[in-house]
Amino acid sequence: MHLSHLAEQILEGDPRAIARGISVVEDDPGAGAELVRELFGRSGRAYLVGITGAPGAGKSTLVDALVAAWRKRGRTIGVIAVDPTSPYSGGAMLGDRVRMQAHAGDQGVFIRSMATRGHLGGLARATGDAALVLDAAGKEVVIIETVGVGQDEVDIIRTADVSVVTLVPGAGDEVQALKAGIMEIADIFVVNKADREGADRLVSAVEANLALQAYGADEWRPPIVKTIATTGQGVPELVDAIWRFRERSKNNEATRRRTRSEYRLRELVSQRFMDHLERDVLAADELSGLVDRIAAREIDPYTAANELLKRAGLKTGPYKERL
Amino acid sequence: MHLSHLAEQILEGDPRAIARGISVVEDDPGAGAELVRELFGRSGRAYLVGITGAPGAGKSTLVDALVAAWRKRGRTIGVIAVDPTSPYSGGAMLGDRVRMQAHAGDQGVFIRSMATRGHLGGLARATGDAALVLDAAGKEVVIIETVGVGQDEVDIIRTADVSVVTLVPGAGDEVQALKAGIMEIADIFVVNKADREGADRLVSAVEANLALQAYGADEWRPPIVKTIATTGQGVPELVDAIWRFRERSKNNEATRRRTRSEYRLRELVSQRFMDHLERDVLAADELSGLVDRIAAREIDPYTAANELLKRAGLKTGPYKERL
Repeated sequence: MHLSHLAEQILEGDPRAIARGISVVEDDPGAGAELVRELFGRSGRAYLVGITGAPGAGKSTLVDALVAAWRKRGRTIGVIAVDPTSPYSGGAMLGDRVRMQAHAGDQGVFIRSMATRGHLGGLARATGDAALVLDAAGKEVVIIETVGVGQDEVDIIRTADVSVVTLVPGAGDEVQALKAGIMEIADIFVVNKADREGADRLVSAVEANLALQAYGADEWRPPIVKTIATTGQGVPELVDAIWRFRERSKNNEATRRRTRSEYRLRELVSQRFMDHLERDVLAADELSGLVDRIAAREIDPYTAANELLKRAGLKTGPYKERL
Repeated sequence: MHLSHLAEQILEGDPRAIARGISVVEDDPGAGAELVRELFGRSGRAYLVGITGAPGAGKSTLVDALVAAWRKRGRTIGVIAVDPTSPYSGGAMLGDRVRMQAHAGDQGVFIRSMATRGHLGGLARATGDAALVLDAAGKEVVIIETVGVGQDEVDIIRTADVSVVTLVPGAGDEVQALKAGIMEIADIFVVNKADREGADRLVSAVEANLALQAYGADEWRPPIVKTIATTGQGVPELVDAIWRFRERSKNNEATRRRTRSEYRLRELVSQRFMDHLERDVLAADELSGLVDRIAAREIDPYTAANELLKRAGLKTGPYKERL
């Protein structure tokens, strides 16, 4: 199938084409870049919702409940689920089927897990491109669900229009695996499993944390929404909170998307340059040989970097101060 | 002062020259690169100890106790303290003076805080270069102390020969700010403030975590050392554990340093290419204009990245699959 034909079918919202398109951006960066080129001008309408939280916070159940709530309000939804702690895409795909069954026959919903290994340009690039496919396919809301444990996940959540951080009460979890940077990028906090002991203490802890920051009168102060995802309790309130954030941040949305575009462009350029260097310029073991020489202290990394830039035919000036 | 003269004085271990050298790599990347070039061939002997942990884990006190313990054993020590939560280098420098007083007149100790903002090429680069200055100055052990909350800190700890993760018992800290990735790179765990309630529970939690991983018979299993840094209790045991790790990992040390060299070279090359592009190739608002066009969906990021590479005079092939 030609990619332009696939793109047409994706734009028509065909579920098989969507599935195929996501596989393409996941598995074949070259064809993926082509597909993104075809779809890019017809995308940008979906609202991207990032949902993150520690393992065991009940994110999948919460996302399923969100999907149901949004469908009730007539919105079409796409979900990209990223879980680096379960690297087996086979298992993930089985999980997808189970999750999709709840919405069987409903073309307004598309759920897909991302394998988490072996993405050229990283998981964040693959996730962003997969979200773009769902966006181009006409999904009004695209949820990106991820475990908030690493830089990859922070990068992913940064690509969203709104960031929802899911916490869960739990005694004795001194080693809770949540990246501090994620607390800072939260637009909305969810305390899930709110019927558990310690839920109110957790709400207070987050409140205390928020109280440390000085929010201006016009500034969005992240609300804390209590949910019980298994029963759906609190989920309509979460949808409301997300919509409220969307209304309030309409003016900043352009800035946010621009920052995102710049970040993405810089990443792509750096990565493609390294790729070019290794593939088109250097001999097979040249980079490796240079690394050996650095490790043996025969050459310093700055001089080595300069040599590589020269090998690529670049005329670089001295390393000037530019902070 | 000429940099080669400064380098000479650093190699002689002169404290003022060391201080000056660290300022140079912190504040002036151009001169910093020169200085690294001068020192690089004469470095590589220090053992780099990375110490990380959540804010409030008592890392500074622990590091001070470690310094005292190592001095007793006749070792010379350098300390680089990185704390992104206290961005005011003025305050940090005041803290240095207080910490240095405990070792007043002892040329075998050098303690320095790093300002955490505005480093071209990132905090990890500046920290690595500062550690190199201490290494070249003849410090046998260089401790890099950091809060384990972000990717920067993980990158910093990755540059060390041994990674010590400091935990602290604390009831109700559901939102403990420790990055999950850091648990994985720990070679040694410290439970500090071990006289506090919950210390044994925390040790058990870490043990349980370790039990999940299958360590081979010959593999290093991270020990858990209980300390009370304020009294020095457990600190000699920690020094022993670090030395034991060093002995055990002698064979892997070369591999570890090689990986580190490669990572650093790749970072430097990417960064210098972007730098070259923006400074020598593109007009002042060209990158920004391209970002605007991406944000407006007039051009996709892949095409934009290609255009930038072309502008830099590179002949790149198609984006081939290469995982």
